[in-house]
Amino acid sequence: MREVAIVAAGMTRFGELWQASLRDLFVQAAQEALRSVGPSRVDGIFVGNMSGGQFVGQEHLGPLCADHLGMAGVAATRVESACASGGAALRMGFLAVASGAHDLVLAAGVEKMTDGGDVTSVLATAADQETEVYHGITFPGLYAMIARAHMETAGTTEEDLAAVAVKNHRHGALNPKAQFRREVSIEEVLASTFVAEPLRLLHCSPVSDGAAAVLLCPLAEAHKYTDKPVKILGSGLATDAIALADRKDPAFLEAVALSGKRAFEMAGVGANEIQVAEVHDCFAIAEICCVEALGLVTKGQARTAAASGETALGGRIPVNTSGGLKSKGHPVGATGIAQAIEIFEQLRGEAGERQVEGARVGLTQNMGGSGASSVVHVLERV
Amino acid sequence: MREVAIVAAGMTRFGELWQASLRDLFVQAAQEALRSVGPSRVDGIFVGNMSGGQFVGQEHLGPLCADHLGMAGVAATRVESACASGGAALRMGFLAVASGAHDLVLAAGVEKMTDGGDVTSVLATAADQETEVYHGITFPGLYAMIARAHMETAGTTEEDLAAVAVKNHRHGALNPKAQFRREVSIEEVLASTFVAEPLRLLHCSPVSDGAAAVLLCPLAEAHKYTDKPVKILGSGLATDAIALADRKDPAFLEAVALSGKRAFEMAGVGANEIQVAEVHDCFAIAEICCVEALGLVTKGQARTAAASGETALGGRIPVNTSGGLKSKGHPVGATGIAQAIEIFEQLRGEAGERQVEGARVGLTQNMGGSGASSVVHVLERV
Repeated sequence: MREVAIVAAGMTRFGELWQASLRDLFVQAAQEALRSVGPSRVDGIFVGNMSGGQFVGQEHLGPLCADHLGMAGVAATRVESACASGGAALRMGFLAVASGAHDLVLAAGVEKMTDGGDVTSVLATAADQETEVYHGITFPGLYAMIARAHMETAGTTEEDLAAVAVKNHRHGALNPKAQFRREVSIEEVLASTFVAEPLRLLHCSPVSDGAAAVLLCPLAEAHKYTDKPVKILGSGLATDAIALADRKDPAFLEAVALSGKRAFEMAGVGANEIQVAEVHDCFAIAEICCVEALGLVTKGQARTAAASGETALGGRIPVNTSGGLKSKGHPVGATGIAQAIEIFEQLRGEAGERQVEGARVGLTQNMGGSGASSVVHVLERV
Repeated sequence: MREVAIVAAGMTRFGELWQASLRDLFVQAAQEALRSVGPSRVDGIFVGNMSGGQFVGQEHLGPLCADHLGMAGVAATRVESACASGGAALRMGFLAVASGAHDLVLAAGVEKMTDGGDVTSVLATAADQETEVYHGITFPGLYAMIARAHMETAGTTEEDLAAVAVKNHRHGALNPKAQFRREVSIEEVLASTFVAEPLRLLHCSPVSDGAAAVLLCPLAEAHKYTDKPVKILGSGLATDAIALADRKDPAFLEAVALSGKRAFEMAGVGANEIQVAEVHDCFAIAEICCVEALGLVTKGQARTAAASGETALGGRIPVNTSGGLKSKGHPVGATGIAQAIEIFEQLRGEAGERQVEGARVGLTQNMGGSGASSVVHVLERV
């Protein structure tokens, strides 16, 4: 298995980008990634996208994206795992390069959510159509049930949930690519309207457009493209029962734990060695469950990790320094790649005001549905 | 790069399977593939599917399929390349095993087309939404233009097109899994109603439900599962301009030629060594263009290859012995895997009345859209 490195990255601003189509967004992110390495011969493209078909009437994004990038001919394939589609595309790119079949791969993600379909209904197609969606539930409701279960078992409070949003907005205010570049207070979060009790508007990630892309090559050839390659130490993907009701404990995300375990094993590092992490905070409760399942914080202390500053910039293990899905935005197919870009920049010392000093090992965790799929990557500056 | 083998296969009958849901179909095919090898530990699942979101309101098929197979936890991802989704899933499975990251992978494809969405409109999302679909064209119209161009440049006749359908129905009549197990005559084809002139109803593949699955492992471990492994000698994927109007020659499928070239180079065999092939005959003209682009027949003779018997059972290079998409059926995401199963069975001498005697090297070619993506695999009995 060849060692694989990320050597370049590009992404659009995330937000309501009414003037840009899906293909525009992809091309913008891809061109930025490619520009930084100069003329080079991409031989594979993986596009993470949840639902181009439902959102904008466009499936078959492999050739569409290759074509509009001026690369018709190149092997290009779409990968889907709901909101973990970006992470899954990164993993496919990793496997393609690791196998020896590809030498320079663009792993990208894109979603155009503000045009077209009813967003909540489209996203709900990532849940179990027969046992969940048919009966009327959508994701805010599913995550509200996860939150209720976590409150019940771990004593999590509405203030704990609010602290996650406050922290991530504080981080996102420092990110030029973020959808919401403003801080919010605990009081504002707790005064925002309920979406699905106990989750309020400011506990929820927004509807976003955006694209992100990274360039992968064998580590042995990385010096051709950059002086600061970031090695993919480990990659893990796992699944769980798709319906929340079919899980042993709705407050514990098994797929997150298992994907982390697989990535840590491949990487040969433990959770305690991670210095900066991007995790999937589609709702505030998700960040709490994810840092817990990954073992990034001590068991039982996940609920207070944001409020205590442990997972904030300057804390022991900064989480979602990009602003996370909450503040940076969540164009679902792009999110997993954008997470990798934040860690790529952190490990290269290029994160500006959000820089975690001396970070050499970082982690990304990207999740689909109510936790039915999860992808973890462990990255290291080499 | 590890050598990879197909060691088992399973598929549903193709057809209008009103009593079975998408998940039922997947499980039926996967269980059949797994049953033939006995208890074993699958560590990866790739599901080819074009449009579960639009057809039946279900994206996120990786975890859904793993879960309903009783394998929640296993790494499972959906792969999409329109009607080439199955071929793309096979390629992902191949790369995953070749890389060393996975040791036993289920590469599957599934589509449920008879429930839910307006099939022609859903399929049209594989074309270019902005420059084609928006203006009202769908796939019968696009392939009709390809046919007209081929008539113009190669002298192809309505009778040549009809001969492809007649041949494939003759083959499909021998296939217990085929949707249409009956022969049709040239006269019947030429008397069938126009769908998009010059293409008639009996030039078109049908709307189908179905699923197919193959099991992949390192060739070095294949003996654990079967006495008759089939090695994946080569795998090639290529793209082309997504819009037909953006191609140099609408009658020549560049992506098919390029994917073939890549697969042949990896395999170290030439087109003249292929003894049996499954190619993408979504419309009769497509088979003519594909055998031409792949070099399976002499240039200029593709249009008469079916009528002359060259590509029929008993001919020099039998094509679509399964009945092809035309007669076997075309549940779009499943087609690429079903093609691999036909060649797997042919190379193992298990194709019954459709057996091509002594076949040791075969090929599959699966296509997306009007030829914007194509995947070719070269397989060998070892």
